[in-house]
Amino acid sequence: MKKKVAIVGASGYSGEELVGLLLRHPHVDLVAVTSRQNAGQPLAQIFPKFASHPRSKALRFTEPNAELLAKQADVVFLALPHGVAAEYAVPLLQGGCVVIDLSADFRLKNAEVYKEFYAHDHPAPDLLATSVYGLPEIHRDQIKQATLIASPGCYPTSILLPAIPLVKAKLVNPHSLIADSLSGVSGAGRKAEPDYLFVECNESVRPYGVPKHRHLSEIEEQLSLAAGAKITIQFTPHLIPVNRGILTTLYLAPAEHFADAAGAARFGEKIAACYRASYGHEPFVRLLEGQALPDTKNVVGTNAIEIAWRLDARTGRLIVMSAEDNLVKGASGQAVQSMNILCGFPETAGLV
Amino acid sequence: MKKKVAIVGASGYSGEELVGLLLRHPHVDLVAVTSRQNAGQPLAQIFPKFASHPRSKALRFTEPNAELLAKQADVVFLALPHGVAAEYAVPLLQGGCVVIDLSADFRLKNAEVYKEFYAHDHPAPDLLATSVYGLPEIHRDQIKQATLIASPGCYPTSILLPAIPLVKAKLVNPHSLIADSLSGVSGAGRKAEPDYLFVECNESVRPYGVPKHRHLSEIEEQLSLAAGAKITIQFTPHLIPVNRGILTTLYLAPAEHFADAAGAARFGEKIAACYRASYGHEPFVRLLEGQALPDTKNVVGTNAIEIAWRLDARTGRLIVMSAEDNLVKGASGQAVQSMNILCGFPETAGLV
Amino acid sequence: MKKKVAIVGASGYSGEELVGLLLRHPHVDLVAVTSRQNAGQPLAQIFPKFASHPRSKALRFTEPNAELLAKQADVVFLALPHGVAAEYAVPLLQGGCVVIDLSADFRLKNAEVYKEFYAHDHPAPDLLATSVYGLPEIHRDQIKQATLIASPGCYPTSILLPAIPLVKAKLVNPHSLIADSLSGVSGAGRKAEPDYLFVECNESVRPYGVPKHRHLSEIEEQLSLAAGAKITIQFTPHLIPVNRGILTTLYLAPAEHFADAAGAARFGEKIAACYRASYGHEPFVRLLEGQALPDTKNVVGTNAIEIAWRLDARTGRLIVMSAEDNLVKGASGQAVQSMNILCGFPETAGLV
Amino acid sequence: MKKKVAIVGASGYSGEELVGLLLRHPHVDLVAVTSRQNAGQPLAQIFPKFASHPRSKALRFTEPNAELLAKQADVVFLALPHGVAAEYAVPLLQGGCVVIDLSADFRLKNAEVYKEFYAHDHPAPDLLATSVYGLPEIHRDQIKQATLIASPGCYPTSILLPAIPLVKAKLVNPHSLIADSLSGVSGAGRKAEPDYLFVECNESVRPYGVPKHRHLSEIEEQLSLAAGAKITIQFTPHLIPVNRGILTTLYLAPAEHFADAAGAARFGEKIAACYRASYGHEPFVRLLEGQALPDTKNVVGTNAIEIAWRLDARTGRLIVMSAEDNLVKGASGQAVQSMNILCGFPETAGLV
Repeated sequence: MKKKVAIVGASGYSGEELVGLLLRHPHVDLVAVTSRQNAGQPLAQIFPKFASHPRSKALRFTEPNAELLAKQADVVFLALPHGVAAEYAVPLLQGGCVVIDLSADFRLKNAEVYKEFYAHDHPAPDLLATSVYGLPEIHRDQIKQATLIASPGCYPTSILLPAIPLVKAKLVNPHSLIADSLSGVSGAGRKAEPDYLFVECNESVRPYGVPKHRHLSEIEEQLSLAAGAKITIQFTPHLIPVNRGILTTLYLAPAEHFADAAGAARFGEKIAACYRASYGHEPFVRLLEGQALPDTKNVVGTNAIEIAWRLDARTGRLIVMSAEDNLVKGASGQAVQSMNILCGFPETAGLV
Repeated sequence: MKKKVAIVGASGYSGEELVGLLLRHPHVDLVAVTSRQNAGQPLAQIFPKFASHPRSKALRFTEPNAELLAKQADVVFLALPHGVAAEYAVPLLQGGCVVIDLSADFRLKNAEVYKEFYAHDHPAPDLLATSVYGLPEIHRDQIKQATLIASPGCYPTSILLPAIPLVKAKLVNPHSLIADSLSGVSGAGRKAEPDYLFVECNESVRPYGVPKHRHLSEIEEQLSLAAGAKITIQFTPHLIPVNRGILTTLYLAPAEHFADAAGAARFGEKIAACYRASYGHEPFVRLLEGQALPDTKNVVGTNAIEIAWRLDARTGRLIVMSAEDNLVKGASGQAVQSMNILCGFPETAGLV
Repeated sequence: MKKKVAIVGASGYSGEELVGLLLRHPHVDLVAVTSRQNAGQPLAQIFPKFASHPRSKALRFTEPNAELLAKQADVVFLALPHGVAAEYAVPLLQGGCVVIDLSADFRLKNAEVYKEFYAHDHPAPDLLATSVYGLPEIHRDQIKQATLIASPGCYPTSILLPAIPLVKAKLVNPHSLIADSLSGVSGAGRKAEPDYLFVECNESVRPYGVPKHRHLSEIEEQLSLAAGAKITIQFTPHLIPVNRGILTTLYLAPAEHFADAAGAARFGEKIAACYRASYGHEPFVRLLEGQALPDTKNVVGTNAIEIAWRLDARTGRLIVMSAEDNLVKGASGQAVQSMNILCGFPETAGLV
Repeated sequence: MKKKVAIVGASGYSGEELVGLLLRHPHVDLVAVTSRQNAGQPLAQIFPKFASHPRSKALRFTEPNAELLAKQADVVFLALPHGVAAEYAVPLLQGGCVVIDLSADFRLKNAEVYKEFYAHDHPAPDLLATSVYGLPEIHRDQIKQATLIASPGCYPTSILLPAIPLVKAKLVNPHSLIADSLSGVSGAGRKAEPDYLFVECNESVRPYGVPKHRHLSEIEEQLSLAAGAKITIQFTPHLIPVNRGILTTLYLAPAEHFADAAGAARFGEKIAACYRASYGHEPFVRLLEGQALPDTKNVVGTNAIEIAWRLDARTGRLIVMSAEDNLVKGASGQAVQSMNILCGFPETAGLV
């Protein structure tokens, strides 16, 4: 009765997080994990923290082989670099698998935009029409029907979940959106590059990818979809010395002008109502109340995103802040959440 | 020939940094350091890292006593909480000392604004007219004549230095300014509060003081002075797990609209020229070139501030980024820089 | 059918960890959490990371009241300072509860030794005879019968689990034992003291409590029990800038002298056999193989302890290394493990 | 009148630290810095933190060329991997330079031991007889006469400085020495290897190189020299998440047995007298008094080593603890100290 699942590219940080989530998921069996560099090694050797799990000694990394995987698994997660993921998605879909891709390959509908931001031709443009952007709180119904899910990027999740309800409700001017994001170093992946050495990151904070980070493409596409118009936004990522966590601060111009504190309070009630209606029943969105502000330490290791907002009566701006674990709600947890929806499991299965 | 200097409140982080800077300053003798809690103890005991300095065993903390200090010292640094600093400034000035105050007490010209942001009456409003805001790159001439210097806050320095030249040159709309700042934990001072415990800060990032942090008052006053009009801005501070360093990202609307990349490039030349004219010869302002972006690790332990900017032709916005050491350029180093100017020492004395 | 459990002193780091473990434990209901400072507040407010749990809004901290707790709960965990814990243990035991104490109050059999190390008279010496030292891998049978469990300290767990099998098997000279331990800062508790501020701990490593740390008393009592003779050992704790984790390195003189590499290899087989026999089937002890050495990052967040050893043919010494999470296997996880044994639950319930 | 100095291999962490020390040294001119990967680039570009120095724009990295360097420089520092350093030392010495080598190539007198620990033949065994081990507090007189200095390793410095006086004075049994050391990650060098990525080191602590780390060879050779007999010791290095700093804890058997606290106190006076006689006037050795224990944060960025000791009357052992900055006293600072001695500069020049 359990679904058989596999992970292609299980040796990176997102892959490792997926392994952990799927090993303890009540409704799936993890039947294959692939990794070119670790092929032949048991899971317990490469990731000692899973060594207590009964499957960790028997389950060995294999070379990735789409044909073989298509026979072994019902659902295949791709935790691969962009460009490479598509190579596996095509044969796996043909082989009858459901594919949940954590790369950027199927997040955009437009192959031209993909080329603009990723600097190479899209490897499988025909699939773009059928893929579903796997942000469950926004696209739950499409996810139920999907065979190819493009799981969102970590930064986009931290920006889109707080922004989309406001944009849809026309409470803010979407063109005004400025997103200032702070990410832990695991967001860079397990790449042995000097920039990500301990000594280079510790006691350091720095912006990067200014002003045109690749994640802008999917953020803008999703915001445009929500707004019903083409939206261009500002986004600045920063690297901070934590392992995990993204903290995003959004600056937005409210659609209404409020002349005084009373006007701001009335508008604030609309914001509050909008968020309650959108997320009041969502299991993984935590709307903060009172004086509380998001803090990554409250969400690390969980699939939750914290959201809080403040209206600034002095400037007339709305500030919205979010915190998530970049490897869970920003990557692997969200991918499992999509799988749960798609497979008809309880949406929180394996995630609480 | 050396000036005699004293530090009131030398046991906090800014005070400790001042001790280090003044001990190795070639033109001053550190004659007194005060601390209620450490009175009687030699410097070497409280701050072992200074134990190699010949003065560290003989120099002992004393109880603060303004009358006595006025007789001992030519220049007195106040590294005290706001509200308390003014109590010492009045008798020290009457006693003929130059006073360099690192607190917020004399940074604002308007006692009402002080009360609005600091929640108590100003303790010495008569002095506000004579105090000079100690940002050397902006107010060097007034500093030369000052007897009371209000050394700027750490966040304000990181925002004002990149913003003021653009505002003065009318290259940006100052009302559009959004400042998103990330600070190391020493900015909170050596306060034994649960929020600043290692476990609460490590592997955490969080905004705070949203949307009306106290530092807004001096930022807005200085920007208003530069703009010749009352300016209100947006400012969001965040706490990140590093000991030292502030990274600020500014979002600004250029005064000109540029229709395309060529227009942006032409406007960019104006920005570059403005910064070169303002800071090309400043010893402590480092204008980054090429692909380089600010990184706090490049400035920690120095009095330098790094500044870089990018025009975003997609959004029409200007992004300016700065990095400084909050305890040096953001506090004690800048205070020493002001002393150097005021006393006629080379401006970089003791700071390189 | 579920056991009702309560936590007295649930606002410290061990208490918080216990809350998390017991909220998701399949065989218990967490019916009460006490905290003087947080009384009246819902769990979700004080610990936002538990806010997604259905009980977190309804369950509020209460003032600790032993009589009331005795009526509410079957099992009560005490996460209190030493000296205070005993005050609650007495009435709770009289009220029919099982008590699992995470403090040092009931770890020693000898009230004189308690006074020597804790500097006050033992508050309930009559209970010392009946309490059981809750190290499941060593005292599982006694735990099954216990009503009062003294859960071991974090350092002792990291030292005793690797050492006791060797001592019992007389493979090492127990008097030779030197334990050099490195602990994360959460080991100091949620105390707002300057020594544990972020800036004081980050980029710092330091020994403390040299040479007579309090934990020596229980380490030596347990080792003496294992050896059948009074044992005195060396123990040096150090504070390192991580939130969680203890890494202990033990230096031991083998009971046999080996003249060459071949002799060392034969003796090594005895060590390996001893560990396999002691821990080969233990769910929470991970004996490392091959080149692997313990790393706290492999055990943080789990109830596992990693153990590896090396014989040094050059010096004739045995080096044993262990890694654990000080808040889980070193505190709250181990306490839950004891509860599982005592209550007849599967020993790993709620811990994997 | 200034000496001309060059650094071969200036792009690693020790090389970078040397650049900083030599740029601000009052008696030398830094005339060349070499780096294969950075050849052609100005210093300011590769190390922005030196950008404020007047030489940083003009001084460019060059390809290493021993003949050319021999013409340019009086003193050449080699900050190269072992094996490679010797290739440069030979022609530089022939060209008349003084060579200060920070690698392991000339630290041992015995080429066989070198091969045993470094796994390749010694590249220039003829030079071993003339090289001087550059530990100034121990070998100051030989350093004065040297033309080839082998600057000690970071771990050896932290162990030898506290141990040698006790061994020479026969106050301890040198065979009993156990050294447990904790090092910051910069000790691993600027190597882009997965083990040293931020995410792999942060929130982690682990032993490595157990039980036969390469540094043992020079530690044992120097201890044997001090003892007048061949000494074999125990040494366990650990990696902890700080950028800089080594904390070493030494366990030693006193040469005398003390029966009680009074005996221990008498023996303690001998220890204290020994350290005072050895280091009481050393500018870079800080003997801690009272309750103080070493802490790396007190020495980071300085050439100081902190030493404290405790006699344990319970176990009869002597515990000695030291703290140093691995890149300064443990590498580049100590190399400059040797240069100062050798060149007749004040020993503290450029180091305070």
